[in-house]
Amino acid sequence: MIIVGELINSSRKAISEAIKSQDVQAIQQVAKDQRDAGANYIDINAGTFVGQESEYVNWMVQKVQEVVDGPCCIDSPDPRAIENALAVHKGTAMINSISLEKERFDALMPIVASHECQVIALCMSDEGMPETAEDRFAIAQDLVNRLVQKGVKVENIYVDPLVQPVSTNDSFGREFLKAIGMIMTQIPGVHTICGLSNISYGLPKRVLLNRTFMSMAIAQGLDGAIVNPLDRKMMAVIAASEALMGRDEFCMNYLNVYRAKGLED
Amino acid sequence: MIIVGELINSSRKAISEAIKSQDVQAIQQVAKDQRDAGANYIDINAGTFVGQESEYVNWMVQKVQEVVDGPCCIDSPDPRAIENALAVHKGTAMINSISLEKERFDALMPIVASHECQVIALCMSDEGMPETAEDRFAIAQDLVNRLVQKGVKVENIYVDPLVQPVSTNDSFGREFLKAIGMIMTQIPGVHTICGLSNISYGLPKRVLLNRTFMSMAIAQGLDGAIVNPLDRKMMAVIAASEALMGRDEFCMNYLNVYRAKGLED
Repeated sequence: MIIVGELINSSRKAISEAIKSQDVQAIQQVAKDQRDAGANYIDINAGTFVGQESEYVNWMVQKVQEVVDGPCCIDSPDPRAIENALAVHKGTAMINSISLEKERFDALMPIVASHECQVIALCMSDEGMPETAEDRFAIAQDLVNRLVQKGVKVENIYVDPLVQPVSTNDSFGREFLKAIGMIMTQIPGVHTICGLSNISYGLPKRVLLNRTFMSMAIAQGLDGAIVNPLDRKMMAVIAASEALMGRDEFCMNYLNVYRAKGLED
Repeated sequence: MIIVGELINSSRKAISEAIKSQDVQAIQQVAKDQRDAGANYIDINAGTFVGQESEYVNWMVQKVQEVVDGPCCIDSPDPRAIENALAVHKGTAMINSISLEKERFDALMPIVASHECQVIALCMSDEGMPETAEDRFAIAQDLVNRLVQKGVKVENIYVDPLVQPVSTNDSFGREFLKAIGMIMTQIPGVHTICGLSNISYGLPKRVLLNRTFMSMAIAQGLDGAIVNPLDRKMMAVIAASEALMGRDEFCMNYLNVYRAKGLED
């Protein structure tokens, strides 16, 4: 399971303030904490700083990589910000994200094609957000085909089928899960990833719904997640889910996590 | 979701002692607590009392139904004990369980066919416990066909595909879940049920694994469970899972449980 730690996001007050005051230590600490908790990638998002986004993303990528021996996930809708960040990033970054929206696709495609990177492919087109599993799958297939034609390796693509709130339509959970299953079985080699907290929008006890939905998605084959790795109950559910699905030989990772840090239930 | 409350089982010390001392109040309290916590059926098991099992099952069924306005699940390998219990049971009981083992099947079949009851159909044959989803499905299909031929309604059958520990073979979780999906989609009208704590045998933090596996099974269509309804975290995961799968219109049950009792996470 690939874990993208989501906490360095300027929509969070603590991060926004650390950026404004250029508090290197605060940013580095959040990065280190996430890495220690199991994040494979540290997401870097400065989206609320219009005009200065690219500058701040670059600053954070460099500061984070001073203390974390691992890659970042460059999280921006702006192709120029992504390209700038790739120029200072060490190792193989992840890009969050390309989609089938024409403007975004056309601007980002050359960057993705000319850099060795992992890329999140959002199941979104100019026709809006898909609702059914089949609509999601059609966009995923189209996106993957186009990326592969441009030389992107299928194993570097993480399809995000887009979670929508079950409170607005009670088929949304089911359709999302079905889409994960279709993508993982019908596009060999590709990965799936998502930030799944949207599922619980408008309902109480969101953490309970988010964790429960995570285990269901892993059962369908989900192999990436954009989460808060400091949420120990979520990380415990992920470890448990992988063991239950036979994706953890002899349950060794489950046992190791249990021995090293305990498993919070 | 049909919940069978599993706590009245003579393998539990408190129950064994209550049976020995004929402590009516103790048995009734456990029954009421389970009913209040959401149990649709109260499981009655006196299996450890060889020679007196039938007598004690009957006594408990009668005492439980004095205080609980609902049915019991008669849990015994002994067809005579089941038949005796059905004679004193009020309303439509559940029987736990028939299987494809010849001796058990031949003895229980006439009883099941001649009483209006729900029946748990274990995916077990004289060849032992099935390991793959396909083996489970074949037994399920055979059992359901035989029961239906004898006049049992398909909607009165709860197939239990048998959970085996993921610690002994890491495909066991996956194969079980696949079996649930096959049974629920390919045998229209039938139900599935299981006691799932076996999944975590031999591993730490069993409650975490059990709950996580429950949500995965519900995502595959599981619509019955033999559980401890006083386990509030388990019951919260069940409510969350049903909402996430669109089996809870407008999330009304989820919201009602939240308001009435809270949802423990």
